[in-house]
Amino acid sequence: MKFENGKVSEIKIAYVGGGSRNWAHLLMRDLIETEDIAGTVALYDINKKAAEDNAIIGNKYNYTENAKTHWDYIATDTIDEALSGANFVIISILPGTFDEMESDVHTPEKYGIYQSVGDTAGVGGIIRALRTIPMFEVIAKAIEKNCPDAWVINYTNPMTMCVRTLYKTFPKIKAFGCCHEVFGTQKVLMTALKEFAGITVDDRREIKTLVTGVNHFTWITQATYKNIDIFPYYEKFCQKYGDIGYSENIDKNWLNNHFACGQKVKIDLFKRYGVIAAAGDRHLAEFCPNNWYLKNPEQVKEWCFALTPVSYRKQELKNQIKHSEELVRGECELTVGNSGEEGVMQIRALLGLCDLTTNVNLPNFGQIPNLPIGVVVETNASFRANEVSPVFTGNLPSNIYPLIARVVGEQETVVEGAMERNLEKVFGAFANSNQMNLDLPTAKKLFDEMIENTKKYLTDYNI
Amino acid sequence: MKFENGKVSEIKIAYVGGGSRNWAHLLMRDLIETEDIAGTVALYDINKKAAEDNAIIGNKYNYTENAKTHWDYIATDTIDEALSGANFVIISILPGTFDEMESDVHTPEKYGIYQSVGDTAGVGGIIRALRTIPMFEVIAKAIEKNCPDAWVINYTNPMTMCVRTLYKTFPKIKAFGCCHEVFGTQKVLMTALKEFAGITVDDRREIKTLVTGVNHFTWITQATYKNIDIFPYYEKFCQKYGDIGYSENIDKNWLNNHFACGQKVKIDLFKRYGVIAAAGDRHLAEFCPNNWYLKNPEQVKEWCFALTPVSYRKQELKNQIKHSEELVRGECELTVGNSGEEGVMQIRALLGLCDLTTNVNLPNFGQIPNLPIGVVVETNASFRANEVSPVFTGNLPSNIYPLIARVVGEQETVVEGAMERNLEKVFGAFANSNQMNLDLPTAKKLFDEMIENTKKYLTDYNI
Amino acid sequence: MKFENGKVSEIKIAYVGGGSRNWAHLLMRDLIETEDIAGTVALYDINKKAAEDNAIIGNKYNYTENAKTHWDYIATDTIDEALSGANFVIISILPGTFDEMESDVHTPEKYGIYQSVGDTAGVGGIIRALRTIPMFEVIAKAIEKNCPDAWVINYTNPMTMCVRTLYKTFPKIKAFGCCHEVFGTQKVLMTALKEFAGITVDDRREIKTLVTGVNHFTWITQATYKNIDIFPYYEKFCQKYGDIGYSENIDKNWLNNHFACGQKVKIDLFKRYGVIAAAGDRHLAEFCPNNWYLKNPEQVKEWCFALTPVSYRKQELKNQIKHSEELVRGECELTVGNSGEEGVMQIRALLGLCDLTTNVNLPNFGQIPNLPIGVVVETNASFRANEVSPVFTGNLPSNIYPLIARVVGEQETVVEGAMERNLEKVFGAFANSNQMNLDLPTAKKLFDEMIENTKKYLTDYNI
Amino acid sequence: MKFENGKVSEIKIAYVGGGSRNWAHLLMRDLIETEDIAGTVALYDINKKAAEDNAIIGNKYNYTENAKTHWDYIATDTIDEALSGANFVIISILPGTFDEMESDVHTPEKYGIYQSVGDTAGVGGIIRALRTIPMFEVIAKAIEKNCPDAWVINYTNPMTMCVRTLYKTFPKIKAFGCCHEVFGTQKVLMTALKEFAGITVDDRREIKTLVTGVNHFTWITQATYKNIDIFPYYEKFCQKYGDIGYSENIDKNWLNNHFACGQKVKIDLFKRYGVIAAAGDRHLAEFCPNNWYLKNPEQVKEWCFALTPVSYRKQELKNQIKHSEELVRGECELTVGNSGEEGVMQIRALLGLCDLTTNVNLPNFGQIPNLPIGVVVETNASFRANEVSPVFTGNLPSNIYPLIARVVGEQETVVEGAMERNLEKVFGAFANSNQMNLDLPTAKKLFDEMIENTKKYLTDYNI
Repeated sequence: MKFENGKVSEIKIAYVGGGSRNWAHLLMRDLIETEDIAGTVALYDINKKAAEDNAIIGNKYNYTENAKTHWDYIATDTIDEALSGANFVIISILPGTFDEMESDVHTPEKYGIYQSVGDTAGVGGIIRALRTIPMFEVIAKAIEKNCPDAWVINYTNPMTMCVRTLYKTFPKIKAFGCCHEVFGTQKVLMTALKEFAGITVDDRREIKTLVTGVNHFTWITQATYKNIDIFPYYEKFCQKYGDIGYSENIDKNWLNNHFACGQKVKIDLFKRYGVIAAAGDRHLAEFCPNNWYLKNPEQVKEWCFALTPVSYRKQELKNQIKHSEELVRGECELTVGNSGEEGVMQIRALLGLCDLTTNVNLPNFGQIPNLPIGVVVETNASFRANEVSPVFTGNLPSNIYPLIARVVGEQETVVEGAMERNLEKVFGAFANSNQMNLDLPTAKKLFDEMIENTKKYLTDYNI
Repeated sequence: MKFENGKVSEIKIAYVGGGSRNWAHLLMRDLIETEDIAGTVALYDINKKAAEDNAIIGNKYNYTENAKTHWDYIATDTIDEALSGANFVIISILPGTFDEMESDVHTPEKYGIYQSVGDTAGVGGIIRALRTIPMFEVIAKAIEKNCPDAWVINYTNPMTMCVRTLYKTFPKIKAFGCCHEVFGTQKVLMTALKEFAGITVDDRREIKTLVTGVNHFTWITQATYKNIDIFPYYEKFCQKYGDIGYSENIDKNWLNNHFACGQKVKIDLFKRYGVIAAAGDRHLAEFCPNNWYLKNPEQVKEWCFALTPVSYRKQELKNQIKHSEELVRGECELTVGNSGEEGVMQIRALLGLCDLTTNVNLPNFGQIPNLPIGVVVETNASFRANEVSPVFTGNLPSNIYPLIARVVGEQETVVEGAMERNLEKVFGAFANSNQMNLDLPTAKKLFDEMIENTKKYLTDYNI
Repeated sequence: MKFENGKVSEIKIAYVGGGSRNWAHLLMRDLIETEDIAGTVALYDINKKAAEDNAIIGNKYNYTENAKTHWDYIATDTIDEALSGANFVIISILPGTFDEMESDVHTPEKYGIYQSVGDTAGVGGIIRALRTIPMFEVIAKAIEKNCPDAWVINYTNPMTMCVRTLYKTFPKIKAFGCCHEVFGTQKVLMTALKEFAGITVDDRREIKTLVTGVNHFTWITQATYKNIDIFPYYEKFCQKYGDIGYSENIDKNWLNNHFACGQKVKIDLFKRYGVIAAAGDRHLAEFCPNNWYLKNPEQVKEWCFALTPVSYRKQELKNQIKHSEELVRGECELTVGNSGEEGVMQIRALLGLCDLTTNVNLPNFGQIPNLPIGVVVETNASFRANEVSPVFTGNLPSNIYPLIARVVGEQETVVEGAMERNLEKVFGAFANSNQMNLDLPTAKKLFDEMIENTKKYLTDYNI
Repeated sequence: MKFENGKVSEIKIAYVGGGSRNWAHLLMRDLIETEDIAGTVALYDINKKAAEDNAIIGNKYNYTENAKTHWDYIATDTIDEALSGANFVIISILPGTFDEMESDVHTPEKYGIYQSVGDTAGVGGIIRALRTIPMFEVIAKAIEKNCPDAWVINYTNPMTMCVRTLYKTFPKIKAFGCCHEVFGTQKVLMTALKEFAGITVDDRREIKTLVTGVNHFTWITQATYKNIDIFPYYEKFCQKYGDIGYSENIDKNWLNNHFACGQKVKIDLFKRYGVIAAAGDRHLAEFCPNNWYLKNPEQVKEWCFALTPVSYRKQELKNQIKHSEELVRGECELTVGNSGEEGVMQIRALLGLCDLTTNVNLPNFGQIPNLPIGVVVETNASFRANEVSPVFTGNLPSNIYPLIARVVGEQETVVEGAMERNLEKVFGAFANSNQMNLDLPTAKKLFDEMIENTKKYLTDYNI
C-alpha cells in the first residue's frame, strides 16, 4: 500500500465468494465513490464463471459517472491467489446451495418446527453450520498462510459460528463479522422520534446506540439522539403499535413481503424486558421459546412477520443471475450510489482515514463480562488505524441473559462438535436448540433426515 | 470459644427457624455424638412453642446413651437474642406455610404446568422466592448487627436465591448453602460400581466427585473411586436401566413414594450430554424444557418419578408435630445415630478439627469461569480452620451450559426484582421460567392468581 | 437541557475549584468558540474571591470577537449550589497550598530523594494524596446528593487516586479523568514522521495511538498515521537523539525550562522495552527505579530534564493572580483561541454532537486484563452520546508490566489507607514507593516530617 | 494400575533427573513405608551412572525393616523409555552444573550484587532460567508424546518458570510444582504458639495456613490452629525477636550455617505489611528492594542470614556422591523414616487413597484474581482422586501486591524471551530484576559475562 496526497492506493482486497451477486455489487458501488482509496479486488469463487462476471461488472464501475477513484477487479483460479498479499479479506459465501438451505428451512416444517429464516441458530442454522464450519477452517488456514496480517470481514451466516471458527482455527486472525440488522432498528427509532418527539433525523448513524448480545439477537440498552434519550419515545411507539403493528406503507406490506415485518415481536420483547431488541422480527422470533411467535404459521401471521420460503430465495437468485449477465453484456445500467452498508467505511477507518464506532461481531474479551470469554458477541467496537477494539459494554441485563446465554451455549457446542466432527455432540445441541419441540427419538429422526439431505457437503464427517 | 484437650467448647450455634422438626433433629443427633465440640444451641422460631419443644428435645439428647459431649438448648424470644455472639448460624425456615406452598405447586396445574417439587425455580420457586427474599434480607441484617463474623449455613430453599440475598444484603457475610442431593447420586454411582465392576464401596464419601452447576441442578464431570474412573460403569448402568428404570427395591417403589425415582431422567440426561446430572430426578426434571419430562402427569409416570403433592407434606408435618410432642412428653424414644448430613462435620472443619472437601453453594468468584461472577453456584469447596474456599472447577461443558445459564439468569432476575420490590421485573422472569408454557396474558393471569394466594407474606411489596 | 436547531442549550457545568487560574481559563476559551452548546458555568472555590474573578472573566468572553455562543458564569457560595442540577462537573482543585506542595517535593531532597514533579506517586504524591482523598470523598458525596447523573471530569492530581476515590465513595458516579500528557508524545511522533518519513501531519489527533498504563506512566503500543506504522520512524528518532537529546529549539531549552525535556528518558525506555512511553520525561522518570534517572541532580541533568521547583510554581501563581486581576479590571486582553485541551470536545461527544475516541482515566473493567479489576487505568475510550466506554486494550506487555503493576499497588494501598485513615498502612506503601531509597527508620522519619508539614490538611486523620 | 484389597499396584513413576542424590533418596524412604501403593520407578538422568546407582539403592530399600510394600527401580537409557506409560512423572534436574551456578551466584558479586540463593529470580535466577527453559520444553514434549495423561510433579528451580514452560509447551499437561519452604514457616508458627500461647502442636500440618503469592515469595494471610488465630501470637514473636533474631539453638547457628536464618527478614516484612512472609529469609530477601537486606555482606550479617556459597554446594555434592557409592557397595546403612516431604502423600491423594489440601505451584486460573491469568502462582490446592484444583484465594493484599507483581512480570518476560530465544527481551527484564542496582551499560556488561560463562548450555540461542 502507498499513502500519498491523502489517498491510500495499491490496496489489495480479496473477496472470497466473489461470485456473490448481492454483497459484491454493493461493495463495488461503495468503493467507486470513495475517493481516498484505490487498488485491486481479487475475486475468488468456487463458481469461477460467477467471479469472472463480477470482475467484468466491477471494472465497468470505473467508467460510471460516479467514479471518484479506480479499482481493478480480477477473478482468480485459487483461493491462495486471491489471498496472497491481501490487505483485506471479505468472506461472503453460500455454504452449499439453496437446495440444502431448502432442507434446512422446510424439512423441519414436516415435524411442526417453523423457521422464519433458518440460517442462524436452531435446527436449520445448526445443519447449515455443519456445512459451513469446515469451509471456514479451510479459509482460516489459507489466510494464515497467505496474508496473516490482513483484516478479515465476514458477512456469511451463521455469523457467530463462522467468526468463532476463524478464531479457533487461526487465533491471531484479525477478523470481525458485520451485519446490518441493527441498522433497521435504528430506523425504527428514527420513526419513533419523528412521530412522538417531532424530531426528524436524517441519518440512522445519528442515533447512538449501545449494542449488546449476539448476532441476529442483538439488543440496545441505551439509545440517544444528541442529548435526548429515545427510550420514552420508543415506549410510546410500543404502546401505539403493539397490537396493530407498524408499517411504513399503508398496505401493511409485511403480508406481501418475505422480509418485512410489523415490529410486533420487537415491541413484545420491549414490553417483557424494557430493552430494545435490535434485529428484524423474523430473526428475533427464532431465538425465543417456540410457543411465543413461531408455534405455527397462524401465530406467525398474528405477529405480522413472514416465514421466508427458500423458493423465494431461489427465484431471487435466478433474477440476480439474469441481471448479472445483462450487466456483463452491457444490456442494462449499473446501479450506483451509496449502499447503506458499512464495509467500505470500516476499511477506511482501518487505513486511518477516519474514526468509526459501530457494532460488529468479535470474540468476547470481556466486553460482556457475564458471557463466557472467547465466544463471539456483537457489541460496539472502535475502529481506528489498524485497530478494531470492542468497547466495554457491561453485563447483559439479567432478564435477557437467559435468552442469550442459551443460544451462546447452543452455538458453542455446535462449533466444538463440528470442529471435532462429532455429530453426536452436535445432536445434543440440536435436541435442545431454538424452536425444538420434539421428543428425543423424533428429534433424532429429523436430525438424520436433515443430515441426509445435506450430506454432499459433509464429506469430512464420518457419516 | 475455648480449645482445651483437643476439644472446642463454649461454642454458640444460633438456629434460625429452630422450630423445624426435621433438620433440627438431625443436627441434634449429630452434635451429641461429636465428642470434640460442645456449647449452646439457641433456637429462634416465629413459632416460639416449636422452638421451645425443640429445646426440650435437644436437652434430652444429653442423656441418651450415644451422648459423647454436652449441648445446652435454649429457645429465644428474638432473633437478636439467638444471634448475639453466635459462632455459627444455621438457617432453616419455611417461608410462609404449606398453604402458600400448596398454591405455589398446585395452582399452576390448573394451567397445565406440573411441578415435581416447586420450591427451587420455575413458577413455584419464583413465588416462594418472593416470600423468602425479604425474610433473608432481615436475617442478613440481623447477622451483620449481632454476629458479623459468624459462619452461616443455609438449608432453606430456594437455596440459590437465599444465599444470593444474604450476600447482596451483607456482602462480608461468611455464608454458604448446603444440600444433600449430590449424596444421593453418589449412592447411585456406588450401585453402578457394585453391579458392573464388582466393587463394594462402604461410604458414599469414598466416591470422589467433581461437582458443578447450581443447586438442585448440579452435575458431576468426574467421578473416581480410588484410581478407578467410574464413568464407564455408569455408562453401563445407563444402558441397562435407561428404559426400565432402576430401583433398589423389587416393587419399584417410586410409584408409591413421593420422593423416590427410577433414575430415568438422570440417565436420559447422561445420554444427551455425557456428564452425570447429580440431583433427584424430581428436581432435575424441573430445569429441563417442559416437553421433556413434565408435560403432563402421564409423561411423569413414564419417566418413573413423582409429582410430590403438598398435601403429603402437610400430613408429614402433622406427623412430625405429633411425634415431637410425644418426644417432649417422653412418650417415645429419641432417634439416635449419624444422620448422613454434613453440617456438623463442616462445623468441625471450620473449627480446625478436620479438613473437608465437599460441595456447597457459594458466590461465583471464578470457580466456574463461564458463569457470571457473583451468582451463587454449587461446586466443591475446601473447608479448613475458619475458611471455606471454593475450588477452581473450570468452565461448564458447553453442552449443558445453556440449561444452567438460563436458570442462573432466571434466579438472578428474581432476586433483583424481589430486592427492588419490582414485581414487573419478576414477572418478566416468570413468563420465561422453567416449565412455563403459557402465552403472555395467561402467564400474567397465573402470576396474579399465585401472588393473590401468597399476598399475606408480600406486605413489603406494592401490590 | 434543550436541543433545538442543532444546538444544546441550558447546560449546567459545575466547576469545582473554579478559582484555578489555569484550567478554568482554557475551558472558557474553548467553550466560547463552540457554537452548538450554551448554558451556565457555576464556579465554586474555597477561595470565593477567585471564583468571583473567574466569573467576571468568563462573562467577558461572551463579548470577544471569537464568541460563537453564550455562557453565563456565576460564583456560588457552596458546593451544593454549584452542583445542584449540574449536567457536567469539572474538578480541578489544588489540595492544600503550594506551601504543602513545597514540602511534598523538597523535604525529601534533604534525605537524598529527588522528584521532578512530586504530585503523582512516590513520597510527594502519597502525602499529596493524603490531603486530597478526604476532599474527594466530600466531593463524591456532594455529587451523589446533588447531581448523581452528571458526567464528572477530573483534572486534579494525583489523578489515579482522585478518580479511584470518586468511584469508591459513590460507585455509580459517571466520572473520568483527563490529562494531556499523551498529546505531547503524539507531537514527538509527528516530529519523527516529519524528519524520517518526510510526512507533515497537521494535527496531533491524526496520530492514532493505542494507549495503556496509568496516568503519567502511559505507554503507546501502536502508533499509526493513515496506514503507516510510525514505530520504525520512532526507532530512527531514538537512534539519533538517544545520546544528544531532542529539542525543538536550537538552544536546548530544557536547560532553562522547568517543564521541558530532551526526550532522553522516553528514548531510553523505548530502547529497554520496545514500546513508547507517553508522558513528559519528568513524569516518566519518577516511576522508574531510583538509580535510573533521579539518583541526584547531576544525573537528572545528564538525562536532560528538570526538577521543577515549587518556588517556580509559586511565582507562576502570583503572575496568574496578577494577570487575572488585570483581566477583571479590563487592563489587559483576554487570550482567545483553541486551547488544545479536549474537555469541551468530550462534553460535545457526551451530548451526542460528535463521536470521539481518546485516552482517559477510568476504572479497569477488564480493558487491561492483567491489571486488577477496579483500579484506575488510562486507556482509550469511546465517547458517544451519554456514554464513555473504555475500549479493550489487551494485556500490558510483560516487560513493562512490573513497572506499572508496582505503582498500581502503591496507589491502591494509599487510597485504602487514606480512606481508612490508617497512616500505618499508608506508610507501608510509602516505604516502598517510587524513588524511595531509605532504610525503614529513616523512611519513617521522612514520613513523619512530611506529615507534620501538611497536618493542617489532615484533620480527619488521627495524628 | 490395579486396585485390589485397598492397594494400588503396578504404578509407574518416571523420575527425570533421577541422578539427584538428594530428592531421589527422600522419595525412596517415603515410598517404601507407604503400604497402599506399589510399582516401578524408572530413573532417567543424563548421567546414566548416577541413575544406575540410584536404582541399586532404591531396590535395596525393599529389604529394609521399614519396607511395607515393594518398588522396582530401573535406570533407563532414554527419557522416552522412562516416560512411556508413566502414571506419575517427577522432575528434579540440575540445569547445567554447579560451575554454571557458581557464575550465576558469584559473578554478580564483582559488580556489587549479592544473592543469598540465586536460583529463583534476579540476575542469577534469570541466567539459570535461560539454561532450564529449553530443557523443560524438551521434557514437556516428551511427556506429551509418552504419557500425556500422567501427573507431573516438578521440584526443579526456578520453580515458577519451569512450571510455566511446561504449560506453555503442552497446555494440557497435568503438572504442578512443589516446594517445602512454607513448611518451615509453619514450624516458626508452632514456635510462636508454644512460647506465647503455651500450646504444643505436634505436626506442622495442624497449622492451617492460607497461602498466596509466588514460589519462594509466598505469604500467609490467615493461620489457624484449631479455632485459634495464630496472628496475635506471631505478632508477639515478632516483637520479641525482631531485633535479636530467633534461633532454635542457643549458638545462633545461622552464623555457622549456610541455610539457617534468624527470621529477622520475615519479622521485618510482617512489621511492614501485617501478613506473614512464608519462605526462608534467604529467599525472601532476594525479592525485596536491593537496599533492604542484600546491599552488601555486612547488611546480610545484620539481618542474620547467609549468602550460600556455591562452593559449599559443590562440597556437599561430593559428599553425597561418596555416600551414594558407599550405599551401592553396601558399606553404609540406608537412612530410613519419613522425609517430611509431601510428594508421596500427593501421589496417594491423586490415586484416591486420601484427601489433601496443601500449597503448590499452578497456573493462575483466577485463584488470585489480581494477578494475571495464566502466570504460575503458589496457593493452596485440593488434591483428590485424579484432581488437583486450586482453591480460590482472593486478591493479594494491596500492600504486598507491588512486590509480588513485579517479580511475576520479571519471570513472565524471561519465559517469553527464553521461549522466543530472544536475549534482548530477557535483558530488558534482567536490567530491572530483583537486586539489580547497575546502570544500563554495566548491567549489559554483567549480562554478557554471565551469558559467556553459561554458553555451553545455551546452544539453542543465537549468541
